[in-house]
Amino acid sequence: MAEQTVYKPGLDGVIAAETGISYLDVEAEEIVIRGYELIELAEEKKYLDLVHLLLHCSLPNDSERASLQQELKQEYRLPPKFFRLFEQLPEKTHPMDALRTGISALSGYDERLNERNEEENLKKAILLLAKIPNIVANSYHILHGQKPVKPKQDLPYSDNFLYMITGKEPNAREAAIFDQSLMVYSEHEMPNSTFAARVIASTNADICGALTGAVASLKGNLHGGANEAVMYMLLEGETIEGFRYLLYKKLKNKEKVMGFGHRVYMKKMDPRAALMKEALRELAEDKGRMDLFEMCEAGETLIREEKGLYPNLDYYAAPVYYLLDIPIELYTPIFYASRTLGLCAHIFEQHSNNKLFRPRVHYTGPRGLHP
Amino acid sequence: MAEQTVYKPGLDGVIAAETGISYLDVEAEEIVIRGYELIELAEEKKYLDLVHLLLHCSLPNDSERASLQQELKQEYRLPPKFFRLFEQLPEKTHPMDALRTGISALSGYDERLNERNEEENLKKAILLLAKIPNIVANSYHILHGQKPVKPKQDLPYSDNFLYMITGKEPNAREAAIFDQSLMVYSEHEMPNSTFAARVIASTNADICGALTGAVASLKGNLHGGANEAVMYMLLEGETIEGFRYLLYKKLKNKEKVMGFGHRVYMKKMDPRAALMKEALRELAEDKGRMDLFEMCEAGETLIREEKGLYPNLDYYAAPVYYLLDIPIELYTPIFYASRTLGLCAHIFEQHSNNKLFRPRVHYTGPRGLHP
Repeated sequence: MAEQTVYKPGLDGVIAAETGISYLDVEAEEIVIRGYELIELAEEKKYLDLVHLLLHCSLPNDSERASLQQELKQEYRLPPKFFRLFEQLPEKTHPMDALRTGISALSGYDERLNERNEEENLKKAILLLAKIPNIVANSYHILHGQKPVKPKQDLPYSDNFLYMITGKEPNAREAAIFDQSLMVYSEHEMPNSTFAARVIASTNADICGALTGAVASLKGNLHGGANEAVMYMLLEGETIEGFRYLLYKKLKNKEKVMGFGHRVYMKKMDPRAALMKEALRELAEDKGRMDLFEMCEAGETLIREEKGLYPNLDYYAAPVYYLLDIPIELYTPIFYASRTLGLCAHIFEQHSNNKLFRPRVHYTGPRGLHP
Repeated sequence: MAEQTVYKPGLDGVIAAETGISYLDVEAEEIVIRGYELIELAEEKKYLDLVHLLLHCSLPNDSERASLQQELKQEYRLPPKFFRLFEQLPEKTHPMDALRTGISALSGYDERLNERNEEENLKKAILLLAKIPNIVANSYHILHGQKPVKPKQDLPYSDNFLYMITGKEPNAREAAIFDQSLMVYSEHEMPNSTFAARVIASTNADICGALTGAVASLKGNLHGGANEAVMYMLLEGETIEGFRYLLYKKLKNKEKVMGFGHRVYMKKMDPRAALMKEALRELAEDKGRMDLFEMCEAGETLIREEKGLYPNLDYYAAPVYYLLDIPIELYTPIFYASRTLGLCAHIFEQHSNNKLFRPRVHYTGPRGLHP
């Protein structure tokens, strides 16, 4: 019994699942995704390749990639009635809340919601990966009184996603960088949202339910919500000097500085952040916004020197999305849309070898009272 | 490190939180709720008293109970526009999915969604406890093409809930038994849905998000979905002999028999089930349906003798709800509506002393592959 009763707040360091999907090897500084290293994949492959790797357990050849793209394109659209849902929501609804409501509502359209063989799972994953970008972009447009931007079926996956958000087709560099950002956000072992999805799936709950719970988790500012918080902080800083002043003030007031540190990486730089830093440099050069890049770098140096903390992915993904003309409120929904991939893989894995999550507690309250 | 890497599938026996809310003391056969024993409370108090106990940490005196009832009554109603949401959902949407979508959508109506002082938390809990029964009952009516049943503000909490479901005011016995069923479902330490809610809340996600994830969890048939499954099984059995035959067949085919066994209680009878068994006896006598009671008892005996398993709460709550004329599809949503109380207490406790849930994994996949 002794080993069972050691309490680790937040399950810090506790093994919660066996998985063949991914692993953060902090000592080797590798994010392992089905045997491959995520940074290598993100440098040499596309998001579509990761879709194949995560769902089929192998990188695709050319014909497999082409048919996967085709399957996704055929599912870009949503039923017209679906959008009316968002017209019923109060205008002030947060985009993550609209996304959560939208994914929850999708379940009613799936007549085979509880079928779970391999073929059916793949179909469900493709459908969700194709439609969730549409929900992300167009729930935002509708809640802002804008016309929905219909998907363009001739555009590749990431190009179409960015197009539905901004209403303009991205150039090659923009599309490539956006695609790379989706790759680095796609899967990351057992963060809170993935854990929440597996916990929910373990009751035999369906994939829409598990994905809905994961949206709820990712909204929190200790998780996905951090990328938005970083951008508001950069905009508040305005200049290198202003940003340094703001960070010093936050440190002095012992406020949490968003975009730094990570439970697992601790005192090393998140390798995904390094990749997004390079993407930001390229994009900033292209768009004549090296001031933003330098501001970010100044913040990185300051926090490293003052606190010994390193940037995480959100710190550099936020300004990348800013230069891609993406509304700040959509940064977390985009993170989620990308992570849908990893979440689907984890939900299928949980269902295929399931044991209900049902931990115990350490009770600290009174005993022996009578009404 | 050794103790951290012991892997307990489903976190079986692992302490996941410190809590002053409740504790299943299996050895003493007590379900402790803030120091009181749940069965004693369910025999002597009302659901409203539990609301006060869980949210204010004490049983109410008469004037506290009266003002709590008043606060709840004032929040029974939903904005008229809210119901249009359910008109947008496909007709085949499962009631738990409609409930999940509804609770998710509620977040847009709360302009102080991220405020979390004690007063604000109490307001949110009252609002949710008052409105969720309305969502449960009326999302069902709307999806079935029926007119919504408006809440009656002169009715006490449980009477009004049952009235909105059936469209007729319950008699005193019906109301008392329904109220007692809500009490026994209201809180139960750390089942999957409560755990899911706390995991989600630990990212600083808001209460609507955490509650939405809990609906998703409770839908699974290894958790809340069991009460519906029990009723379908009883109806399929039809008579004592038919039911015994059905159970033998299931045992022979090694199918899971719903309504028996519980991860924590193991080989003892769930004390909540014993209470609902007595409620079923009373109700069956009143309604001339002792055949249903005897059928349930025959099933209990058979499974105890053949498998050594005892009924859990769902086994006796299901036929109670059946005799209260509640549509079978609403059994799990009602369980959820009652559990909203415990969930709110757990979410507030998590927020007030938070540590992000972020466990690790044991990786079983390949290593060292290159794209």
